[in-house]
Amino acid sequence: MEIKEIKTESLNVKSFIQKKTKEIAAMVSSGSAVNALSGGVDSSVVTMLGHKALGDRLKTYFVDNGIMRAGEPKKVVMLFRDLGVPLEVIDSRAQFFDALKGVADPEEKREAITRVFYKEVFGELVRKSGSKYLLQGTNYTDVEETVAGIKRQHNILEQLGINPQEEYGYKVIEPLVQLRKSGVREVGRALGLPEVMYNRPPFPGPALAARVIGEVTPEKIEIVREATEIVEGELSKTRAFQYLAILHQDRVTGIREGKRDYGLQIEIRCWESKDAREGLPTRLPYDVLEKLAESITDKVPRVVSVTYNITRKPPSTIEAI
Amino acid sequence: MEIKEIKTESLNVKSFIQKKTKEIAAMVSSGSAVNALSGGVDSSVVTMLGHKALGDRLKTYFVDNGIMRAGEPKKVVMLFRDLGVPLEVIDSRAQFFDALKGVADPEEKREAITRVFYKEVFGELVRKSGSKYLLQGTNYTDVEETVAGIKRQHNILEQLGINPQEEYGYKVIEPLVQLRKSGVREVGRALGLPEVMYNRPPFPGPALAARVIGEVTPEKIEIVREATEIVEGELSKTRAFQYLAILHQDRVTGIREGKRDYGLQIEIRCWESKDAREGLPTRLPYDVLEKLAESITDKVPRVVSVTYNITRKPPSTIEAI
Repeated sequence: MEIKEIKTESLNVKSFIQKKTKEIAAMVSSGSAVNALSGGVDSSVVTMLGHKALGDRLKTYFVDNGIMRAGEPKKVVMLFRDLGVPLEVIDSRAQFFDALKGVADPEEKREAITRVFYKEVFGELVRKSGSKYLLQGTNYTDVEETVAGIKRQHNILEQLGINPQEEYGYKVIEPLVQLRKSGVREVGRALGLPEVMYNRPPFPGPALAARVIGEVTPEKIEIVREATEIVEGELSKTRAFQYLAILHQDRVTGIREGKRDYGLQIEIRCWESKDAREGLPTRLPYDVLEKLAESITDKVPRVVSVTYNITRKPPSTIEAI
Repeated sequence: MEIKEIKTESLNVKSFIQKKTKEIAAMVSSGSAVNALSGGVDSSVVTMLGHKALGDRLKTYFVDNGIMRAGEPKKVVMLFRDLGVPLEVIDSRAQFFDALKGVADPEEKREAITRVFYKEVFGELVRKSGSKYLLQGTNYTDVEETVAGIKRQHNILEQLGINPQEEYGYKVIEPLVQLRKSGVREVGRALGLPEVMYNRPPFPGPALAARVIGEVTPEKIEIVREATEIVEGELSKTRAFQYLAILHQDRVTGIREGKRDYGLQIEIRCWESKDAREGLPTRLPYDVLEKLAESITDKVPRVVSVTYNITRKPPSTIEAI
């Protein structure tokens, strides 16, 4: 069945929400549904929509994978609690770090995170919940990129380790599948999400693991988390498309209290871009760059060197991994 | 015996050269002397001084270690030939790269280079030459830093693998030992060295091996050599204290012809400094930074990403290794 795009310009948010709420309620009927909230725009909006349709019969899981930004789990949980949406927080930090141990290849890192999330953690939760309905925040761009071969087609049930032949009756509901990101944001706003949530800048799926070159450990995540907090705090004032801190694996010489200190390097990237397909490094004033370098070397343990990326995309990419 | 500094302000260049020429000639008498020319200011000046004193009885070796900048061996050899100073070029590239194989630690890299140079290459040349007199470009700052414990005291004979007890009669002559670098430059100018030579900016002893993070291979040296040529070509116009290109070991994602390319990163540093003890990154205009990034990613194979260092010294150092 072909999916028909609803352009954001012609989206009637109120009637869209009414229609989707009815559809979800009709499909699930007297049963229950589950979904995973990551804190990103799509999963936040689908959580709100599912809650409106099903109330407490929607079971929402927030999986703490240990590789999120500073304060992120607390922030997301508090926000949804304030909105009256119940969440269950699942502490899976040890499982994720175990799977990442010794893995240095970027592709393998991404796969390890996906595998632990779907097969080990969320798959288990879905089975235990007894729910047969899965709510997913897939949007139209995801579909399009799958067709174009940019993203792989992810069969969610297969990812969950659920074989539809053997375990009959699971159904995936994707209420946002006709919308672009801007449409999803409109729906989020109308559903009462605060702006910090429906207007969040993009953040990679593998979270801070995508910001560590080489093997990911709890110590390295803590270092890049602190650097990310400083960079986001300073650069959120700019109107840049995206900004990030990357922890390098290479070590470089530095000096601390007059003595040689073989330490760490943080790379900062800040992008001007429309759609992430092409990008230019933001011409940040040197005052800002120097302040960032000073903050990071002062506050983040073991960091003796900070660089700013000056390459356009292509041949660079937005993220380093 | 205490060494007495001759301050550059009170240096009488003409009489200094006369005095040192006589001293060298008197010491060597009817014998011969050897020295190693690296192409740096000190060894270039001592070569000119020794040649003035001894003529063809000074045997000067130029050791090509394979880790010099683009065109460097040819440039130095041509220059001294034009000045009428004979040089013997020793191709030791294979020996140096062999010694660097598998060595990733910065200290061990430096030691491998020093060991191959003194023990294997130059020690052998000194013995074969039959000369008992070694001309060395040691200056007053070297002596001072040895006393202060910043540089290790290097016994040149020990470094050459010559035991003065067993192999009697070797003598080291250090005619520049009372001068600071600025004084050495004055002497070089008076001896007829061109300005590109007596005013050369500092360059590290381990040459381009100091600009490669991790193991040094001929391929990596070639990459950082090309990047260095671009960076020096562009930044020599600035009045910066020092500028350099560093090849990282970490690999980062890039895109080439629409496809993912897991490539290399070059880091640029450019310093404002008086004496290298403290330093600030030069506030290079973004036009220059962007041009450098474009040149490097266009011309240097496999490089997909270029960064600019924005950290002051301390806690950074001028070089990364």
